[in-house]
Amino acid sequence: MSTAGTRETQIISDPDVPLVRIIREFDAPVDKVFRAHTDPELVKQWLGPRNTDMRIEHFDCRTGGAYRYVHTSDGNEYGFHGSFHEVRPGEVIVQTFTFEGFPDAVALERLVFEDLGDGRTRLTGTSLVDSFEGRDAFVAGGMDSGVREGYERLDELLSK
Amino acid sequence: MSTAGTRETQIISDPDVPLVRIIREFDAPVDKVFRAHTDPELVKQWLGPRNTDMRIEHFDCRTGGAYRYVHTSDGNEYGFHGSFHEVRPGEVIVQTFTFEGFPDAVALERLVFEDLGDGRTRLTGTSLVDSFEGRDAFVAGGMDSGVREGYERLDELLSK
Repeated sequence: MSTAGTRETQIISDPDVPLVRIIREFDAPVDKVFRAHTDPELVKQWLGPRNTDMRIEHFDCRTGGAYRYVHTSDGNEYGFHGSFHEVRPGEVIVQTFTFEGFPDAVALERLVFEDLGDGRTRLTGTSLVDSFEGRDAFVAGGMDSGVREGYERLDELLSK
Repeated sequence: MSTAGTRETQIISDPDVPLVRIIREFDAPVDKVFRAHTDPELVKQWLGPRNTDMRIEHFDCRTGGAYRYVHTSDGNEYGFHGSFHEVRPGEVIVQTFTFEGFPDAVALERLVFEDLGDGRTRLTGTSLVDSFEGRDAFVAGGMDSGVREGYERLDELLSK
Protein backbone atom coordinates (compact mmCIF):
# COMPACT_ATOMS: atom_id res chain seq x y z
CA MET A 1 0.00 0.00 0.00
CA SER A 2 1.29 3.41 -0.89
CA THR A 3 -0.06 6.63 0.55
CA ALA A 4 -0.93 9.94 -1.06
CA GLY A 5 2.14 11.76 -2.25
CA THR A 6 4.25 8.66 -2.71
CA ARG A 7 2.60 7.28 -5.81
CA GLU A 8 4.84 6.67 -8.77
CA THR A 9 4.18 8.51 -12.02
CA GLN A 10 4.94 6.17 -14.91
CA ILE A 11 6.10 7.90 -18.08
CA ILE A 12 6.35 5.50 -21.02
CA SER A 13 7.49 6.33 -24.54
CA ASP A 14 5.62 4.12 -27.02
CA PRO A 15 8.00 2.09 -29.22
CA ASP A 16 5.76 2.11 -32.32
CA VAL A 17 4.18 5.56 -32.56
CA PRO A 18 5.37 9.03 -31.46
CA LEU A 19 3.31 9.02 -28.29
CA VAL A 20 4.10 9.24 -24.60
CA ARG A 21 1.88 7.62 -21.98
CA ILE A 22 1.65 8.91 -18.40
CA ILE A 23 -0.05 6.78 -15.72
CA ARG A 24 -0.73 7.91 -12.16
CA GLU A 25 -3.09 6.86 -9.37
CA PHE A 26 -4.70 9.17 -6.84
CA ASP A 27 -6.30 8.54 -3.44
CA ALA A 28 -9.40 10.51 -4.35
CA PRO A 29 -12.69 9.70 -6.07
CA VAL A 30 -12.93 10.12 -9.83
CA ASP A 31 -15.36 13.07 -9.69
CA LYS A 32 -12.99 15.04 -7.49
CA VAL A 33 -9.98 14.29 -9.72
CA PHE A 34 -12.00 15.23 -12.79
CA ARG A 35 -13.13 18.54 -11.25
CA ALA A 36 -9.51 19.40 -10.45
CA HIS A 37 -8.88 19.24 -14.23
CA THR A 38 -11.87 21.25 -15.40
CA ASP A 39 -12.41 24.03 -12.82
CA PRO A 40 -9.84 26.74 -13.60
CA GLU A 41 -9.78 27.85 -9.93
CA LEU A 42 -8.57 24.35 -9.01
CA VAL A 43 -6.36 23.79 -12.09
CA LYS A 44 -4.19 26.79 -11.32
CA GLN A 45 -3.46 25.41 -7.84
CA TRP A 46 -1.58 22.37 -9.13
CA LEU A 47 -0.82 22.34 -12.90
CA GLY A 48 2.90 22.67 -13.54
CA PRO A 49 6.06 22.45 -11.44
CA ARG A 50 6.42 24.03 -7.99
CA ASN A 51 7.57 27.66 -7.81
CA THR A 52 5.44 28.36 -10.87
CA ASP A 53 2.68 30.92 -10.96
CA MET A 54 -0.20 30.17 -13.34
CA ARG A 55 -2.32 32.91 -14.91
CA ILE A 56 -5.35 31.62 -16.81
CA GLU A 57 -6.56 33.76 -19.72
CA HIS A 58 -9.46 31.49 -20.56
CA PHE A 59 -10.23 27.87 -19.71
CA ASP A 60 -13.52 26.68 -21.13
CA CYS A 61 -13.26 22.95 -20.45
CA ARG A 62 -16.18 21.55 -22.46
CA THR A 63 -16.48 19.91 -25.87
CA GLY A 64 -15.65 22.65 -28.38
CA GLY A 65 -14.09 24.98 -25.81
CA ALA A 66 -10.52 26.28 -25.67
CA TYR A 67 -7.89 27.46 -23.20
CA ARG A 68 -4.84 29.64 -22.82
CA TYR A 69 -2.67 30.07 -19.74
CA VAL A 70 0.72 31.50 -18.85
CA HIS A 71 3.20 29.98 -16.41
CA THR A 72 5.59 32.44 -14.73
CA SER A 73 8.80 31.13 -13.20
CA ASP A 74 11.84 33.18 -12.20
CA GLY A 75 10.46 36.14 -14.11
CA ASN A 76 10.08 34.20 -17.37
CA GLU A 77 6.67 33.70 -19.01
CA TYR A 78 5.65 30.51 -20.83
CA GLY A 79 2.38 30.52 -22.75
CA PHE A 80 0.29 27.43 -23.57
CA HIS A 81 -2.92 27.09 -25.53
CA GLY A 82 -5.21 24.52 -27.08
CA SER A 83 -8.75 23.33 -27.73
CA PHE A 84 -10.98 20.85 -25.95
CA HIS A 85 -12.06 18.38 -28.64
CA GLU A 86 -14.20 16.34 -26.26
CA VAL A 87 -14.99 16.47 -22.57
CA ARG A 88 -17.05 13.62 -21.02
CA PRO A 89 -17.53 14.25 -17.27
CA GLY A 90 -15.74 11.69 -15.11
CA GLU A 91 -14.50 9.81 -18.18
CA VAL A 92 -12.25 11.54 -20.66
CA ILE A 93 -10.79 14.83 -21.84
CA VAL A 94 -9.39 15.02 -25.40
CA GLN A 95 -7.53 18.23 -26.12
CA THR A 96 -4.82 19.83 -28.22
CA PHE A 97 -1.73 21.40 -26.63
CA THR A 98 0.88 23.86 -27.84
CA PHE A 99 3.76 25.38 -25.89
CA GLU A 100 4.07 28.78 -27.52
CA GLY A 101 7.87 28.58 -27.43
CA PHE A 102 7.40 26.06 -30.29
CA PRO A 103 4.22 27.43 -31.90
CA ASP A 104 4.15 24.94 -34.77
CA ALA A 105 4.34 21.88 -32.50
CA VAL A 106 0.91 20.58 -31.59
CA ALA A 107 0.17 17.56 -29.40
CA LEU A 108 -3.10 15.65 -29.35
CA GLU A 109 -3.74 14.61 -25.75
CA ARG A 110 -6.20 12.17 -24.23
CA LEU A 111 -6.77 11.93 -20.48
CA VAL A 112 -8.75 8.92 -19.28
CA PHE A 113 -10.24 8.84 -15.76
CA GLU A 114 -10.73 5.35 -14.31
CA ASP A 115 -12.64 4.63 -11.10
CA LEU A 116 -10.60 2.06 -9.12
CA GLY A 117 -13.19 1.82 -6.32
CA ASP A 118 -12.55 2.65 -2.64
CA GLY A 119 -12.31 6.33 -3.56
CA ARG A 120 -9.27 5.84 -5.78
CA THR A 121 -8.69 6.93 -9.37
CA ARG A 122 -6.26 6.02 -12.14
CA LEU A 123 -5.37 8.70 -14.67
CA THR A 124 -3.90 7.65 -18.02
CA GLY A 125 -2.73 10.47 -20.25
CA THR A 126 -1.41 10.09 -23.78
CA SER A 127 0.28 12.75 -25.83
CA LEU A 128 0.67 12.20 -29.58
CA VAL A 129 2.90 14.25 -31.88
CA ASP A 130 3.97 13.85 -35.51
CA SER A 131 7.61 12.80 -35.04
CA PHE A 132 9.69 10.64 -32.73
CA GLU A 133 12.28 13.44 -32.51
CA GLY A 134 9.59 15.84 -31.24
CA ARG A 135 8.28 13.30 -28.75
CA ASP A 136 11.76 12.48 -27.41
CA ALA A 137 12.73 16.15 -27.12
CA PHE A 138 9.51 16.76 -25.18
CA VAL A 139 10.23 13.92 -22.73
CA ALA A 140 13.93 14.86 -22.37
CA GLY A 141 13.13 18.55 -21.86
CA GLY A 142 12.14 18.31 -18.22
CA MET A 143 8.56 17.29 -18.99
CA ASP A 144 8.89 14.36 -16.56
CA SER A 145 9.89 16.46 -13.53
CA GLY A 146 7.15 19.01 -14.33
CA VAL A 147 4.50 16.30 -14.54
CA ARG A 148 5.67 14.52 -11.37
CA GLU A 149 5.75 17.74 -9.38
CA GLY A 150 2.39 18.81 -10.71
CA TYR A 151 0.84 15.50 -9.67
CA GLU A 152 2.37 15.81 -6.18
CA ARG A 153 0.73 19.22 -5.90
CA LEU A 154 -2.52 17.63 -7.12
CA ASP A 155 -2.21 15.00 -4.33
CA GLU A 156 -1.97 17.85 -1.84
CA LEU A 157 -4.98 19.66 -3.31
CA LEU A 158 -7.10 16.46 -3.34
CA SER A 159 -6.26 15.70 0.31
CA LYS A 160 -7.70 19.03 1.48
CA MET B 1 0.60 22.01 -67.85
CA SER B 2 -2.58 20.67 -66.37
CA THR B 3 -5.86 22.52 -66.23
CA ALA B 4 -8.44 22.92 -63.49
CA GLY B 5 -10.21 19.68 -62.72
CA THR B 6 -7.43 17.45 -63.95
CA ARG B 7 -4.96 17.94 -61.13
CA GLU B 8 -3.80 14.84 -59.36
CA THR B 9 -4.48 14.45 -55.65
CA GLN B 10 -1.49 12.71 -54.06
CA ILE B 11 -2.35 10.63 -51.00
CA ILE B 12 0.77 9.35 -49.23
CA SER B 13 0.88 7.12 -46.15
CA ASP B 14 3.96 8.01 -44.08
CA PRO B 15 6.22 4.98 -43.47
CA ASP B 16 7.43 6.07 -40.02
CA VAL B 17 4.45 7.59 -38.21
CA PRO B 18 0.66 6.94 -38.43
CA LEU B 19 0.02 9.93 -40.64
CA VAL B 20 -1.40 10.40 -44.13
CA ARG B 21 -0.35 13.32 -46.31
CA ILE B 22 -2.61 14.75 -49.05
CA ILE B 23 -1.17 17.15 -51.62
CA ARG B 24 -3.21 19.00 -54.24
CA GLU B 25 -2.74 22.12 -56.38
CA PHE B 26 -5.46 24.55 -57.39
CA ASP B 27 -5.68 27.15 -60.16
CA ALA B 28 -6.84 29.85 -57.77
CA PRO B 29 -5.12 32.36 -55.48
CA VAL B 30 -4.36 31.35 -51.93
CA ASP B 31 -6.86 33.78 -50.35
CA LYS B 32 -9.69 32.32 -52.40
CA VAL B 33 -8.72 28.73 -51.57
CA PHE B 34 -8.42 29.66 -47.89
CA ARG B 35 -11.86 31.32 -47.85
CA ALA B 36 -13.40 28.20 -49.38
CA HIS B 37 -12.21 26.35 -46.24
CA THR B 38 -13.35 28.86 -43.62
CA ASP B 39 -16.67 30.29 -44.86
CA PRO B 40 -19.35 27.69 -44.05
CA GLU B 41 -21.50 28.87 -46.99
CA LEU B 42 -18.63 27.92 -49.33
CA VAL B 43 -17.48 24.83 -47.43
CA LYS B 44 -20.84 23.11 -47.79
CA GLN B 45 -20.67 23.52 -51.58
CA TRP B 46 -17.66 21.23 -51.97
CA LEU B 47 -16.61 19.28 -48.84
CA GLY B 48 -17.23 15.54 -49.28
CA PRO B 49 -18.08 13.27 -52.18
CA ARG B 50 -20.64 14.09 -54.88
CA ASN B 51 -24.29 13.19 -54.20
CA THR B 52 -23.76 14.22 -50.59
CA ASP B 53 -25.77 16.88 -48.83
CA MET B 54 -23.98 18.78 -46.08
CA ARG B 55 -25.79 20.36 -43.13
CA ILE B 56 -23.61 22.54 -40.93
CA GLU B 57 -24.60 22.81 -37.26
CA HIS B 58 -21.80 25.18 -36.38
CA PHE B 59 -18.54 26.09 -38.08
CA ASP B 60 -16.55 28.71 -36.22
CA CYS B 61 -13.27 28.57 -38.15
CA ARG B 62 -10.95 30.64 -35.92
CA THR B 63 -8.33 29.74 -33.29
CA GLY B 64 -10.28 28.20 -30.40
CA GLY B 65 -13.46 27.66 -32.42
CA ALA B 66 -15.22 24.38 -33.18
CA TYR B 67 -17.41 22.72 -35.81
CA ARG B 68 -20.01 20.04 -36.35
CA TYR B 69 -21.63 19.01 -39.61
CA VAL B 70 -23.70 16.14 -40.98
CA HIS B 71 -23.33 14.56 -44.41
CA THR B 72 -26.45 12.94 -45.84
CA SER B 73 -26.11 10.37 -48.60
CA ASP B 74 -28.77 7.88 -49.76
CA GLY B 75 -30.82 8.64 -46.64
CA ASN B 76 -27.92 7.88 -44.25
CA GLU B 77 -26.52 10.54 -41.91
CA TYR B 78 -22.83 10.81 -41.02
CA GLY B 79 -21.82 13.27 -38.31
CA PHE B 80 -18.39 14.87 -37.94
CA HIS B 81 -17.04 17.26 -35.32
CA GLY B 82 -13.84 18.83 -34.08
CA SER B 83 -12.05 21.92 -32.84
CA PHE B 84 -9.94 24.54 -34.57
CA HIS B 85 -6.66 24.59 -32.64
CA GLU B 86 -5.16 27.32 -34.80
CA VAL B 87 -6.27 29.30 -37.83
CA ARG B 88 -3.77 31.67 -39.52
CA PRO B 89 -5.42 33.37 -42.53
CA GLY B 90 -3.90 32.32 -45.84
CA GLU B 91 -1.36 30.08 -44.09
CA VAL B 92 -2.54 27.20 -41.96
CA ILE B 93 -5.50 25.52 -40.27
CA VAL B 94 -4.81 23.04 -37.45
CA GLN B 95 -7.88 21.15 -36.31
CA THR B 96 -9.13 17.96 -34.72
CA PHE B 97 -11.49 15.61 -36.56
CA THR B 98 -13.82 12.82 -35.46
CA PHE B 99 -16.21 10.79 -37.58
CA GLU B 100 -18.98 10.06 -35.09
CA GLY B 101 -19.32 6.49 -36.38
CA PHE B 102 -16.03 5.93 -34.51
CA PRO B 103 -16.43 8.42 -31.66
CA ASP B 104 -13.20 7.49 -29.86
CA ALA B 105 -11.01 7.96 -32.96
CA VAL B 106 -9.60 11.46 -33.18
CA ALA B 107 -7.29 12.78 -35.90
CA LEU B 108 -5.06 15.82 -35.59
CA GLU B 109 -5.08 17.58 -38.96
CA ARG B 110 -2.88 20.33 -40.38
CA LEU B 111 -3.72 22.08 -43.64
CA VAL B 112 -0.96 24.26 -45.11
CA PHE B 113 -1.74 26.82 -47.85
CA GLU B 114 1.18 27.67 -50.14
CA ASP B 115 1.17 30.50 -52.66
CA LEU B 116 2.74 29.15 -55.89
CA GLY B 117 2.48 32.51 -57.69
CA ASP B 118 0.51 33.14 -60.91
CA GLY B 119 -2.73 32.72 -58.96
CA ARG B 120 -2.01 29.11 -58.04
CA THR B 121 -2.05 27.41 -54.65
CA ARG B 122 -0.68 24.18 -53.22
CA LEU B 123 -2.57 22.59 -50.35
CA THR B 124 -0.78 20.06 -48.12
CA GLY B 125 -2.93 18.32 -45.56
CA THR B 126 -1.70 15.90 -42.92
CA SER B 127 -3.83 13.72 -40.72
CA LEU B 128 -2.24 12.09 -37.65
CA VAL B 129 -3.79 9.30 -35.59
CA ASP B 130 -2.46 7.09 -32.79
CA SER B 131 -2.12 3.76 -34.65
CA PHE B 132 -1.05 2.49 -38.06
CA GLU B 133 -4.11 0.21 -38.12
CA GLY B 134 -6.38 3.23 -37.67
CA ARG B 135 -4.55 5.21 -40.34
CA ASP B 136 -4.65 2.33 -42.84
CA ALA B 137 -8.35 1.63 -42.20
CA PHE B 138 -9.06 5.33 -42.77
CA VAL B 139 -7.20 5.35 -46.11
CA ALA B 140 -8.71 2.02 -47.23
CA GLY B 141 -12.25 3.06 -46.24
CA GLY B 142 -12.94 5.17 -49.30
CA MET B 143 -11.26 8.26 -47.87
CA ASP B 144 -9.29 8.67 -51.11
CA SER B 145 -12.30 8.80 -53.41
CA GLY B 146 -14.11 11.19 -51.05
CA VAL B 147 -11.14 13.54 -50.94
CA ARG B 148 -10.56 13.42 -54.71
CA GLU B 149 -14.21 14.11 -55.48
CA GLY B 150 -14.36 16.87 -52.91
CA TYR B 151 -11.34 18.58 -54.48
CA GLU B 152 -12.89 18.28 -57.95
CA ARG B 153 -15.97 20.03 -56.58
CA LEU B 154 -13.66 22.65 -55.05
CA ASP B 155 -12.05 23.19 -58.49
CA GLU B 156 -15.53 23.88 -59.87
CA LEU B 157 -16.40 26.29 -57.05
CA LEU B 158 -13.08 28.16 -57.44
CA SER B 159 -13.57 28.55 -61.19
CA LYS B 160 -16.85 30.42 -60.72
